[in-house]
Amino acid sequence: MSTINHQVRLAARPVGDPRPTDWEHVEETVGEPGDGEFLVQVLCLSIDPAMRGWMNAGRSYIRPVEIGEVMRAGAVGRVIASRHSGFAVGDHVSGSFGVQEYCLSGGRSVTKVDPAAAPLPTYLGALGMSGLTAYFGLIDIGRPEPGQTVVVSGAAGAVGSVVGQIAKILGCRVIGIAGGEAKCRLVVDEFGFDAAIDYKSEDVRKALRDQAPSGVDVYFDNVGGDVLDAVLPRLARGARVIVCGAVSQYNSASPQGPANYLSLLVNRATMTGMVVFDYADRYAEGTARLATWRAEGRLKSLEDVVSGGVAEFPDTLMRPFRGENHGKLVLKIAD
Amino acid sequence: MSTINHQVRLAARPVGDPRPTDWEHVEETVGEPGDGEFLVQVLCLSIDPAMRGWMNAGRSYIRPVEIGEVMRAGAVGRVIASRHSGFAVGDHVSGSFGVQEYCLSGGRSVTKVDPAAAPLPTYLGALGMSGLTAYFGLIDIGRPEPGQTVVVSGAAGAVGSVVGQIAKILGCRVIGIAGGEAKCRLVVDEFGFDAAIDYKSEDVRKALRDQAPSGVDVYFDNVGGDVLDAVLPRLARGARVIVCGAVSQYNSASPQGPANYLSLLVNRATMTGMVVFDYADRYAEGTARLATWRAEGRLKSLEDVVSGGVAEFPDTLMRPFRGENHGKLVLKIAD
Repeated sequence: MSTINHQVRLAARPVGDPRPTDWEHVEETVGEPGDGEFLVQVLCLSIDPAMRGWMNAGRSYIRPVEIGEVMRAGAVGRVIASRHSGFAVGDHVSGSFGVQEYCLSGGRSVTKVDPAAAPLPTYLGALGMSGLTAYFGLIDIGRPEPGQTVVVSGAAGAVGSVVGQIAKILGCRVIGIAGGEAKCRLVVDEFGFDAAIDYKSEDVRKALRDQAPSGVDVYFDNVGGDVLDAVLPRLARGARVIVCGAVSQYNSASPQGPANYLSLLVNRATMTGMVVFDYADRYAEGTARLATWRAEGRLKSLEDVVSGGVAEFPDTLMRPFRGENHGKLVLKIAD
Repeated sequence: MSTINHQVRLAARPVGDPRPTDWEHVEETVGEPGDGEFLVQVLCLSIDPAMRGWMNAGRSYIRPVEIGEVMRAGAVGRVIASRHSGFAVGDHVSGSFGVQEYCLSGGRSVTKVDPAAAPLPTYLGALGMSGLTAYFGLIDIGRPEPGQTVVVSGAAGAVGSVVGQIAKILGCRVIGIAGGEAKCRLVVDEFGFDAAIDYKSEDVRKALRDQAPSGVDVYFDNVGGDVLDAVLPRLARGARVIVCGAVSQYNSASPQGPANYLSLLVNRATMTGMVVFDYADRYAEGTARLATWRAEGRLKSLEDVVSGGVAEFPDTLMRPFRGENHGKLVLKIAD
C-alpha cells in the first residue's frame, strides 16, 4: 500500500489574521502501521477559533504547533489498517489527527464513535470537545442554579449553543448574544433560548437591562472584547464569569482588556478561565449525559459542514472570525 | 451644651481628580444625644482610596455619598455624651462617623476600642478595616498554602502591608510591588517581605520572572492598571487573583482593563472581587487574630498620621493617589 497523504503544515507564525503564506501544503507517502499502531483515514476536521492560539509561540494552555508541523486539529475518521488490539479496520474514531488525510495513531486520546448513533460531525460538536467544553465550563465553573440567569456569547456557535441548551435543561433563564438576525433567530427558535441579543444592531448593556433585570448570574464568554465589557456591568451579586475563549481578540496584536472588570469587585463576582483538557478523566461522564439529552430530543446539535480537501482548511479557519458559521464548523474531507 | 461641628460635605461629583470645589465646608451646631444615642468626638479619620469611588453616582458595592451629605469616613473617637446603655462617656469607639468633628450615633456598626492596647490610628489600620480587608481577602479568597508565592501590589499601603505579613505568617514566599525605593525598602526591612519590586523603576513582569520563577499563586491587587497587567502573565496554574482595589484607576474617566486577562484561561486561574463589608459577621474572628499576631510581634502596623482640621481632608485624600503615604493614612483632627 502506498497512499499519498495531503497535509497542511504551519509555515510561519501569523501576525494578526493568518495569511495563505503561513501555511505549507505538503504531500507525503503514508507508511504502514507498526506494531500497536493503526492508520486512520481522516473524514471530518473540527474547525475551531482556538486553533488561532495554537499557531502562536509562547506558553499557553497547550504547546504551540511548531513551524513545519502538521496543523493540530480534532477530527473523526475511519480505521483502514490496524496492528492495534483495541482498534479494528472499519472502526470510526475521534482524536487529534491533524489537518491531513491520513494519520498513524498509537491510540492515545483516541475514542471510538458510533456512526449509527449520530452523524460523524456531531462527534466534533455537541457530542465532542465543543459539547464537553460547554458541559464542564457551565456546570463546574458556572454552577448555575434553577431560576438563575445565564448569558452566553457566541450563542449560535458550537460551544455557545450547547451551553444555552444545558442551562435550559437545568432550569435557568437563558439569553444568547450573537451577531446578526439570523443567528439570533436560530438561538431562540432552534436552540430554545429565552432571548437573544444581536450585538451588531443592539446595545448589549441596555438589552441586558431589559432581558436580565435582576442581573446576570452566570456569563459564559466565548468572545471577549466589547461584548464582555457590556456584560460585566450587568453581573448579579456573586456572579460567575467563565472565560472560555475570546474569538474577537485572537487575531489582534494588542488585545483589549475588559475595562469594566471592577464590576467583579462591586458584585463580589468571579472570572475563571477554563480549558476542557483538564476534565479528561471525566469526558465519559460528560459525553454520556450529552448523548442522553440528545437522544431525549432535549439537546440539538447543528453542524455547519464545509466539503473540500485539506487545502480548504486555511480559508475555512477564517470563517468563525468573520462570524460566518452557525453551529459547529466542520471541514469534511472524505466520505 | 452648644458645640460647633465642622464638617466636609460632598458638593459635586468629581470628574477625574476631585477638586476643591467638589467639597463644601459647613459649620453646624451639634445637638444633644436623644434616647439611645451618644455623641462622639471624632479624633482620627481613616483616609482610603476607596473614598473616591463613594463620590461617584451609580450602583456600587455601597451606596454613593449624596450631594450635600457629610463625606463618609471610617473614624475613631471618644464618647463625650451618652444616653445609650452600651456606650459610656470616655469610651473610645470606631465607626463610620464621617468627615466631621462630632457625630451623633445610635451605636449601629460601632465597636469599642482600647487605647491602652494599641494607638488609636492602629484601629483604623492593621486592627481596623484595612487589616480585616487584608485578612479576609487573602485567607478566604486567596487561600494561600505554605510554600506558595503571594504577590501584593500597594505593598507599602494599609492593606498591602498587612496582606504580605499575614502571607509570611502562613509560610508563603511574599513579593511586594510598590512605587519607589523608600517603599520597597520599607516592605522588605520593616514588613519582612521576601522581596520588593519597584514598579516605577523596574519592569514588573521581568522582575517577577526572577523573583517568582515558578509563577504567582496568589495575587492581591490594590492598584489595577499596568501593574495588574504585568502580573497576569506570570500567574501559576490555578492562581487566585483578589481584586481588592484599583487605586491607579479611580480618577480615570476611561479605566484601563487588564489586556492580559486571557492568562486566566491559559492558567485556569480565577479573579475575584472582594468587599470587606461582606465579612461583618466574622470581624471579631479577624480582629482577634490580627491583635494576637500584633501582640506576638509578628504583625507590624505603620500609620502615616497627618494632623490638621477636617479642612485638611480634601488634600489628604489625594495623597494615596500621588503615592505619598506609607502604611495607613490617618487624618488626626483632635487629641
